Amino acid sequence: MSEARSLLENLSELLKRASMFGYASNLLYWDQQTKMPIDEAKGRAEIYATVKAEWFKLLTSNEVGETLKKLVGKETELDPGGQALVRRIGNIYERAKAIPPDLFKAFSEASLRAYTVWVEAKEKSDFKHFQPALEEMIGFKNKFAELYGYEKNPYDALLPDFEPGITSEDLKRIIQSLKEKLVPFVSLLIEKSNKPNESLLRGHFPEDLQRQLSLESLRLIGFNFNQGRLDTTVHPFTITIGADDTRVTTNFLPGELDSALLSTLHEGGHALYDQGRDSLIKWVYFDRGYSMGIHESQSRMFENMVGKSLSYWKFFYPKLQNIFSYYESVPLEDFYRAINVVKTSPIRIYADEVTYNLHIMFRFEIEEALIKGEIEVKDLPEIWNSKMQEYLGILPENDAKGVLQDVHWSLGYFGYFPSYMLGNLYAAQLFDAVKREIRDLEEEITKGNLKPLLAWLREKVHPFGLVREAPDLLREVTGEVPNSQYWMEYIKEKFDQIYGIS
Amino acid sequence: MSEARSLLENLSELLKRASMFGYASNLLYWDQQTKMPIDEAKGRAEIYATVKAEWFKLLTSNEVGETLKKLVGKETELDPGGQALVRRIGNIYERAKAIPPDLFKAFSEASLRAYTVWVEAKEKSDFKHFQPALEEMIGFKNKFAELYGYEKNPYDALLPDFEPGITSEDLKRIIQSLKEKLVPFVSLLIEKSNKPNESLLRGHFPEDLQRQLSLESLRLIGFNFNQGRLDTTVHPFTITIGADDTRVTTNFLPGELDSALLSTLHEGGHALYDQGRDSLIKWVYFDRGYSMGIHESQSRMFENMVGKSLSYWKFFYPKLQNIFSYYESVPLEDFYRAINVVKTSPIRIYADEVTYNLHIMFRFEIEEALIKGEIEVKDLPEIWNSKMQEYLGILPENDAKGVLQDVHWSLGYFGYFPSYMLGNLYAAQLFDAVKREIRDLEEEITKGNLKPLLAWLREKVHPFGLVREAPDLLREVTGEVPNSQYWMEYIKEKFDQIYGIS
Repeated sequence: MSEARSLLENLSELLKRASMFGYASNLLYWDQQTKMPIDEAKGRAEIYATVKAEWFKLLTSNEVGETLKKLVGKETELDPGGQALVRRIGNIYERAKAIPPDLFKAFSEASLRAYTVWVEAKEKSDFKHFQPALEEMIGFKNKFAELYGYEKNPYDALLPDFEPGITSEDLKRIIQSLKEKLVPFVSLLIEKSNKPNESLLRGHFPEDLQRQLSLESLRLIGFNFNQGRLDTTVHPFTITIGADDTRVTTNFLPGELDSALLSTLHEGGHALYDQGRDSLIKWVYFDRGYSMGIHESQSRMFENMVGKSLSYWKFFYPKLQNIFSYYESVPLEDFYRAINVVKTSPIRIYADEVTYNLHIMFRFEIEEALIKGEIEVKDLPEIWNSKMQEYLGILPENDAKGVLQDVHWSLGYFGYFPSYMLGNLYAAQLFDAVKREIRDLEEEITKGNLKPLLAWLREKVHPFGLVREAPDLLREVTGEVPNSQYWMEYIKEKFDQIYGIS
Repeated sequence: MSEARSLLENLSELLKRASMFGYASNLLYWDQQTKMPIDEAKGRAEIYATVKAEWFKLLTSNEVGETLKKLVGKETELDPGGQALVRRIGNIYERAKAIPPDLFKAFSEASLRAYTVWVEAKEKSDFKHFQPALEEMIGFKNKFAELYGYEKNPYDALLPDFEPGITSEDLKRIIQSLKEKLVPFVSLLIEKSNKPNESLLRGHFPEDLQRQLSLESLRLIGFNFNQGRLDTTVHPFTITIGADDTRVTTNFLPGELDSALLSTLHEGGHALYDQGRDSLIKWVYFDRGYSMGIHESQSRMFENMVGKSLSYWKFFYPKLQNIFSYYESVPLEDFYRAINVVKTSPIRIYADEVTYNLHIMFRFEIEEALIKGEIEVKDLPEIWNSKMQEYLGILPENDAKGVLQDVHWSLGYFGYFPSYMLGNLYAAQLFDAVKREIRDLEEEITKGNLKPLLAWLREKVHPFGLVREAPDLLREVTGEVPNSQYWMEYIKEKFDQIYGIS
C-alpha cells in the first residue's frame, strides 16, 4: 500500500469515529422532528448540541490535522475519489480551524437569540424588532469572512459553506443572463388567459391513501427502503443517519393532493443522492462545506423534471386514479396543467418551478450587498420590496410575508440561498446531458422505468458528488460550467407547451 | 450553599454530560428495535457501541472520582435523595473502576461471541456447542467477583449489578419459605378440573383496534404521553431516552387478544416508574447497578395486580366489548378467568402469574452453584431438567426449550434472574401497603380511577427508587424487608377464588 493510501485509511478511520457522533446527532434531530414527545424538547436540544459538538471536536482534532498535513503533496497517488475526499475534508478542516472557538461559541449563542427574535418579529411583522439581531449576525459573518480570507469580495469567503468552487462573479454572470430572459417570460405567462385549473388538486385526500401514493412514487424512482424510510413531519426534510440509513419525511395535507406527493419526490431525490454515495464516503458525516446545489439538483430533478413531467404522469396517473377515483373523470392533460400552474407569489417556498429562481436572484443581490456593507440593515424592507417589484412585479402585503419570511439570515446562513437556484440550473444541465446520452429516456419514464436515469446518476453524479466542487463535476459530466442556458430552454419549452405559446 | 450541596451540583453536572451520551445511545437502541431500516444493522451496532462507550468514559472519569472522594464524610449534609444518589453513583463508580479496561474489553468481546454461539446452539438444541462459551463467561464472572470482592459467596459480588442490597442468603431465605407453599399450591391448581377457557382470547384482532385498546389502557394508568410514546417491536421493552422521554413498546399479535394488552400494561408500569423519578436524577442515565426488582415490581403490579384483576376489568371490559363486539356475549367472569389461567410450561416467558416464580427459583440455585464452582457446566442439562421436575413437575422436550431457553448467561448476566422473582414479591408487598393506606383503592379501580394508586407510588416509590436499595425502600414504605409472604397470600386469595378452592 502506498503511503498516501495508508494515510487516507487513517483519515477515514478518524472521520468514521467523528461521524458516528454526527450520525447520532442526526438521529436525535430526525426523532425530534418526527417522533419525540413534546416535553423532551428542551432536554433534547441539550443532548443534540452535546453529541454534535463531539463530532466537531473529533473532526477538528489534531490527529485529523496532522494526517491531512502528511497527505499534502501525496494526493496524486490516490484515486480521484480519494483525492476529492482529501481536498474537501482539508477545506472543511481549514475553515473550521480558522474561527477561534470562543468566537464560534459567541456566534452560536447569538444565532440562537437571533432566531428567537426573528420568530417574534415575523409573528408581529415587525422588522425593527429583528434589525439589531440581524446587524449582529452580519457583524459575525464579516469577522468570519476576514478570518477565512478572500481576494476582493467578503461574500466569496462565505459561499464555500454551501457552494465550494462558486464565486460571486459566477453568480452575477448567471443571474444577469437569466434575468434578461426569465422576467419577460414570467410576465408573458402571467398575462395568458388559459390558466390551468388548480382547483382540481383541492379536495379531501385521507392521509393513508396519500401515504400509499407517496410510497409508490418513492419505490418507482428507486428509493431503497432497506436503507431508509418515510415519515411525517411539519417541514419535510431528508436526513442521513448512518452509512446505510437515509430517511425522507413529508407532510400530508388533507386538503391538497400535490403537496405531499411532490415534496416526497423532492426529498426522494435528495435521498437517492445520499444512498448512492461511494463507500469511501459513507462514513463521512457532512454538515456543510459540500455543494448544496448538486444536492438540490437531485431533489429538483425528481420533483420537477420527473415529477411534474407529462411522461411521468402518463405512467403514474392511472395509479392515482386507482386510489382517488375522482380523477377518473379528469383528463390527464388537465391534471398535468394543474400541477404546473405558474403564478407570482411573495412567498419563496410556495413558488412554482418558473418563478422560484426570481426569489433567489434578488436575495443574492441583497445579501451580497449586506455583507459588502453597501446597504444598511435598516433599509432592508424598502430594498426588499423594490427588488420584489423589479423581479416578480408584486409587493408583499407586509414584512412578515416579505423580508422576514425566511429563517436563513437569523441563523447566519449568508450564501445559502444561491444553492437553491443553482440546484435548478444544475438539474437542467444534468437532465439535458442524460437525455443526450440516453435517447429513449422519456419513453422509458412513460413506461414507469426510471432505472436508466438512476443508473446514469449513480455512475456520474452520486458516488463522489458530496466531495466535488460543482463546476468540476458539471464540466466533466455535461461538458460545461454552471450556466442558466439549459434551465431556461427547459422552462421555455415546457411552459410554451403548457400555456400554448407558439 | 453547603460544600456538600455544591459538590453534589458538580457531580450532577458531570453525570448530566455523561448521561447525554447514555440517552443518545438509548435512542439509537430504541430506533434500532422499532424503526431502523435493515441494512443499517451493522453500522448502527458500531455507532451504538461508540456513543455508549463515551457515556462510560465520562461516568468513570477522574473528575467524577474526585468529586465522589470529596463528598466522603459530608453526605449527611445532603437531603436523603442526594445521599442516596451519591451512594448509588459511588457504588457504580467503584464497581466500574474495579475491572481493568482490558479485562472488560475481553469480556465484552467474549460475550458477543458467546451470544452468537448461544443463538446457534439454541437453534440446533445442542448444549455441547454452547458449553465452552458458557464456561468462558463463568470464568470472566469469577474474575470479576474477585475484583469486586466478597465475604463468603462470589455470587454476592455479582448481585449488586441488578439488586444492590440483596444477598444470596436473602434469596435462599425467601425461596425456601416460598417453595414450601407454592409447589403444592400449583399442583393443586393444575389438578382442578374447572379450567378457565383460554380459547376466548384467541381469534382475529386487527392491529389498529388492539393499538386503540393499548393506548386507552396506558392513558388509564396515567402514562404521560407528553413524555413518552407507544411503538411496536418484536420483544417489548421500555426505554428512557431523556429527562422527559420514556417510551414503551409492544407487539400486536393478530391472533391473540391478551398478549399485547398485558405487555403494554407491563411496560407501562416500568414507564410510570421512570416518568416519576425525581428531578435530581432525571439527568442520570442508569445502565445497571440499581434495583431491577423495584423496577420490575412496578411493571408486574400494573400487569398483574391491576391488569389481571377483576376490579380493573369491571371498568375496562365494556371498552373492550365496544371495540371487539364478540365479547358482548362473553360474561366478564369467563373473560377474567381466561386471562388468569394457570398451567405449567417449560418456557419462563410464557409462564403465568402463579408459576413464574418457580422458573426463577431454580435458575437462582443453578447459577449460584455455577459461580461457586459447585457444579460443572457439562452437567447443566441434567441438573436443569431435574430442577424443573422438582419445581414444576414437568420436563422440557429438549435443551432448546430447557437449559438453552434464556439469553442471559450468554451475555454474562449472572445475578439477573432473581430480580424477576423479587419484582413479583416487592409488587405484592407494596400493593398490600397501598391497600392498607387507601382503603377504597379497589373500589376506585372499579370506577376506572387509578389516580390514587399512582399518587401513592409517586410519593413513596418512584422519586428515588432508582437510587435506593430495595430492602431500605421496602422497610420504609411497607414496614418489612423483602419476603414472600404477601405475594403468596395475594396469589392464594386470588386463585382460590378463580379455581373455586375453599
